[in-house]
Amino acid sequence: MTSPLARATLQVDTRAQAEVLDITPQVEEAVRELGMNQGVVLLYCPHTTCALTVNEVADPDVRDDVRRALWALVPAIRFRHIEGNSPAHLLAAMLGPSLLLPVEGGKLALGTWQGVYLCEFDGPRSRQVWVYPLAASP
Amino acid sequence: MTSPLARATLQVDTRAQAEVLDITPQVEEAVRELGMNQGVVLLYCPHTTCALTVNEVADPDVRDDVRRALWALVPAIRFRHIEGNSPAHLLAAMLGPSLLLPVEGGKLALGTWQGVYLCEFDGPRSRQVWVYPLAASP
Amino acid sequence: MTSPLARATLQVDTRAQAEVLDITPQVEEAVRELGMNQGVVLLYCPHTTCALTVNEVADPDVRDDVRRALWALVPAIRFRHIEGNSPAHLLAAMLGPSLLLPVEGGKLALGTWQGVYLCEFDGPRSRQVWVYPLAASP
Repeated sequence: MTSPLARATLQVDTRAQAEVLDITPQVEEAVRELGMNQGVVLLYCPHTTCALTVNEVADPDVRDDVRRALWALVPAIRFRHIEGNSPAHLLAAMLGPSLLLPVEGGKLALGTWQGVYLCEFDGPRSRQVWVYPLAASP
Repeated sequence: MTSPLARATLQVDTRAQAEVLDITPQVEEAVRELGMNQGVVLLYCPHTTCALTVNEVADPDVRDDVRRALWALVPAIRFRHIEGNSPAHLLAAMLGPSLLLPVEGGKLALGTWQGVYLCEFDGPRSRQVWVYPLAASP
Repeated sequence: MTSPLARATLQVDTRAQAEVLDITPQVEEAVRELGMNQGVVLLYCPHTTCALTVNEVADPDVRDDVRRALWALVPAIRFRHIEGNSPAHLLAAMLGPSLLLPVEGGKLALGTWQGVYLCEFDGPRSRQVWVYPLAASP
């Protein structure tokens, strides 16, 4: 188990405290950079106040609705974490840091309306997304 | 990285606007179809208003409770997306499109009470679930 | 597709009805036990009332805030499941059973502040986490 693990790293600069960003074009570029033809990519978010998910990218209203609805979910409890960003930690923990996407013919094999969202909950910040190729079964 | 990536495709016809369906038998069939013995399967949902998760399938009341509770989570904000199905996009984004399940001895290696749920949030529709075999480390 | 799938099994004894536990050291030990150098590990939770996620482990207030906020999310609907633990099933279904973490140089490659949480929603119980090594693309 000593084969080198190629990794592409995306740099994403967010521009607001709360933002839902379409990063599909950058993920496609990472897939090309990794030289993948068929397989699965793991997108891994190494942060604790942003997260990754997939949803419709055709209508920007969808990501705006998702962003506002996620924040409206945060319960009005007394948070203790001194930095004051516990809602961001909650939303990141709920959405999770890892996402798997199929690759076919050198491109992401997403559904017709799907794109990849980076959800910033504590920006603006410089974020990374790590992209790892995984092998299909022989 | 040019090995062919086998994919099995499940067809799932949902019957209601909101539904939590046990698709475990169909996933088991896909595992057989792929000829897997040991490894991990990626289940990928190529839609933006339904999602996949795992939970108890023994008592149908559980999936009914989960379905009603997910909808009760949707906050009463003003949604802008013109199609009117932003709550479905929110729930799909929260649950996520990808799910990994271990396979041992040619069968899904789930916990005793676990089964695979397709959560329909904008049905009834014809849905697909893509099933990809992933390789274990050599 | 007949290669043996190594699996390490973590035993986690939770101590409260609701608890967010840092299991990062045990996952690191599993990675060593599996003899992995580079790749990705799948953590799989075979239960229906607990779940896995990743978040900040430096300040214990964060996991306490996340625990209380998750419970505050549970809507006040009439649950039907006779065992009375439907809120636990809901939270487990929302967070999901599977988590993928990169491994580099024989260790988990997490972000600076990240650690792995087991979220107990129906304890105290004896829980397992199954750890599977996945192959990187050749």
